[in-house]
Amino acid sequence: MQELKVILRDDEIPRQWYNIQADMPTPLSPPLNPATGQPIDPEDLGKVFPMNLVEQEMDQNRWIDIPEEILEKLLLWRPSPLQRAVGLEKALQTPAKIFYKNEGVSPAGSHKPNSAIAQAYYNKEFGIRRLTTETGAGQWGSALSFAAQQFGLELKVYMVRVSFEQKPFRKLMMQTWGANCVPSPTRDTATGRAVLEEYPDTPGSLGIAISEAIEDAVSSENTRYSLGSVLNFVCLHQTIIGLEAQKQMEKIGAYPDVVIGCIGGGSNFAGLAAPYIRDKIQGREIRVIGAEPTACPTLTKGPYAYDFGDLAKTTPLLPMHTLGHDFIPAPMHAGGLRYHGMAPLVSRLCQDKLVEGAALNQLDCYAAGMLWARTEGFIPAPETTHAIAAGIEEAKKAKEEGRERVILIGWSGHGLMDLKGYEAYINGELSNYEYPQEMIDKSLEVLKDYPKPE
Amino acid sequence: MQELKVILRDDEIPRQWYNIQADMPTPLSPPLNPATGQPIDPEDLGKVFPMNLVEQEMDQNRWIDIPEEILEKLLLWRPSPLQRAVGLEKALQTPAKIFYKNEGVSPAGSHKPNSAIAQAYYNKEFGIRRLTTETGAGQWGSALSFAAQQFGLELKVYMVRVSFEQKPFRKLMMQTWGANCVPSPTRDTATGRAVLEEYPDTPGSLGIAISEAIEDAVSSENTRYSLGSVLNFVCLHQTIIGLEAQKQMEKIGAYPDVVIGCIGGGSNFAGLAAPYIRDKIQGREIRVIGAEPTACPTLTKGPYAYDFGDLAKTTPLLPMHTLGHDFIPAPMHAGGLRYHGMAPLVSRLCQDKLVEGAALNQLDCYAAGMLWARTEGFIPAPETTHAIAAGIEEAKKAKEEGRERVILIGWSGHGLMDLKGYEAYINGELSNYEYPQEMIDKSLEVLKDYPKPE
Repeated sequence: MQELKVILRDDEIPRQWYNIQADMPTPLSPPLNPATGQPIDPEDLGKVFPMNLVEQEMDQNRWIDIPEEILEKLLLWRPSPLQRAVGLEKALQTPAKIFYKNEGVSPAGSHKPNSAIAQAYYNKEFGIRRLTTETGAGQWGSALSFAAQQFGLELKVYMVRVSFEQKPFRKLMMQTWGANCVPSPTRDTATGRAVLEEYPDTPGSLGIAISEAIEDAVSSENTRYSLGSVLNFVCLHQTIIGLEAQKQMEKIGAYPDVVIGCIGGGSNFAGLAAPYIRDKIQGREIRVIGAEPTACPTLTKGPYAYDFGDLAKTTPLLPMHTLGHDFIPAPMHAGGLRYHGMAPLVSRLCQDKLVEGAALNQLDCYAAGMLWARTEGFIPAPETTHAIAAGIEEAKKAKEEGRERVILIGWSGHGLMDLKGYEAYINGELSNYEYPQEMIDKSLEVLKDYPKPE
Repeated sequence: MQELKVILRDDEIPRQWYNIQADMPTPLSPPLNPATGQPIDPEDLGKVFPMNLVEQEMDQNRWIDIPEEILEKLLLWRPSPLQRAVGLEKALQTPAKIFYKNEGVSPAGSHKPNSAIAQAYYNKEFGIRRLTTETGAGQWGSALSFAAQQFGLELKVYMVRVSFEQKPFRKLMMQTWGANCVPSPTRDTATGRAVLEEYPDTPGSLGIAISEAIEDAVSSENTRYSLGSVLNFVCLHQTIIGLEAQKQMEKIGAYPDVVIGCIGGGSNFAGLAAPYIRDKIQGREIRVIGAEPTACPTLTKGPYAYDFGDLAKTTPLLPMHTLGHDFIPAPMHAGGLRYHGMAPLVSRLCQDKLVEGAALNQLDCYAAGMLWARTEGFIPAPETTHAIAAGIEEAKKAKEEGRERVILIGWSGHGLMDLKGYEAYINGELSNYEYPQEMIDKSLEVLKDYPKPE
């Protein structure tokens, strides 16, 4: 009988996160205050995030201890399984060995709680009693609802109105975990009221929801804002994924030739990939691929530049691959990958050729997701299908070349809350999105007066 | 750091099912042919199920080898974790230790695939190429869709029309796994056409769907019917749950004082409990509780009698606790527990005082489910909340008595596909159901002319 999984015991869970800032060949350019063009004052960030997280954002230590209180909560579902996709290998008739790290086993069904739990803990530690956040597709909002409840924090989630109406189940998850989930724009913030004044029937947008959540946080007592990707500390919290995967593969004497994660804001990918990129920096031969949608080709088509993290320009200027902060990706189903920018950490690593981007189109991704569900059983999230599709391409190449190749896929979450995308695919209602270069060029014009990162 | 989980390695998965028929103090009375009142001819059952499963239904051996091909598929998600509910213990301030066996980790999200995989395998082995089944709430239909796909079998699922319309996501899961899921009644069977002739707008019923699925199976080439609970072989396949739990608790030197599972048709409960009931038969002091809804109080209010397994009276007469085959349980959310009868195995064990029933009401169960979600993270299925509510009662008793007590809960599945019940609970729209004894007595009148089991 072939063993299909490598499981770590509770006492084998990693006790430290890995901070790749300590090993990057080129240090990160700092976030800039858009008014002055100077590096942002940490005190300014401290109005939005608790200072202990602001400090973690800039921490340069290689290893950062995971507080015991966080480990206890992570153990509700971690260490997550490393599994071998034998059924898929057979279907592809490939000599490749395909492993996947299954983050779908968390209460919220994705990797997001890895950082949600950490952020809730640090806020609580800092004396914060209430969090705000925004959510689009709902993965982050539900993860933070679960985490806030675990630490007894209040939470208000500004959910993009169109998602709020189209995805009632995500809202119900958040309510079950005790969060207050409201359709954005609301009448509760000046931003929301202004938008509703002008566009009473607006479907809302992630940009508006972010602005509302930040306004609420900075203007309410004992309240801070929480963000589910992009930032260094979010990527840091996610490194537990890659650290576990390394331990697990070591147990069976395996090491990947290629590591693949889907990539939107970048934290899921960075979490899986960072420990492997460290090996690569130290000379190991390994490919590290961020799989993104052609509908939002940030790594493959966007330049490395300073840009705002949000449409409303409320964030500092961040050094990153970007399609321009007012780029609106096509309405494809992998909502978690519809982000114009990319985590500065991942962007810098990409500049240094330690990470490569691959753009996958929607139909290939759903075909890959269907094949996965029918061979491996678990139905992947639309975001996760991008990593699977890229993994299948690698497995096919291995077959053509007739050589074994070890492929590690980051299986970021299950698709049980996103079955409408599968329905649309099965019914032939989906299409691919590709942008003419002129359109991207036009969207990038906003960048021309901003400073340039090194 | 406290360890919260006990995980078995792939190579520690049980290799045999435990057949409690070998150890029961009173043997099962046989199923009867309703026309003759005589034990059913296995050849008749062989028209509905493949003969290898019919033989397994009557097998009296204590240990039955699990074929390698089944083990390989079970390893996609098994062994399932045994977890300690420390957060719940704290919230209850109980000295009790609460463990739960998490069956929510399967691709379909419940324990159902344990038997679905086995049934698909045995059908395939027997040369069957196509399966039929019915589904109400959708748990069984989706589990069998996954399993049929794993063995390359065609599958047609007759889904009660009202569920088909109200639960589109369950249908989408089945389609994603390649099954043909249709709203019952259909025009594809004589039964369906007759019903539609008379009641064109019928919402359908489980009884009608069963009749359609069986008619399709016995009248189509190379086709058999598949059932997700009640039968001996289904209970047998589920014993892997309890066998794993015993191995896991042994690893930490623990043994439960009380084992609790929710109980509808009985297979989830039997699967968890059977190995413990064996210990009890051998003299071990342990309580084994089947937690059922007051809306369908089969074990607590139904007599032990011969009755049909379905409303349409297409099955043999089965010796079981029953509320009468035309008892229609109130429309509560735990659809998987809305069954008038009870697995003959469980019924017989209950007669012999090896199993006790406990009836829980809907509001207490949802309150328990909410408390679980907010302490332990995972959102339980409405069915599972019954076991949790009963477990919480035991934990409270332990607190009153001031003594440690080890409680093992069968966590049969997650509730991500059933969030509407939570919404109704949060909005105060749910109520309890209790039946006046006269109503149950009236429903039991159908039994008066049937033979009586010993």
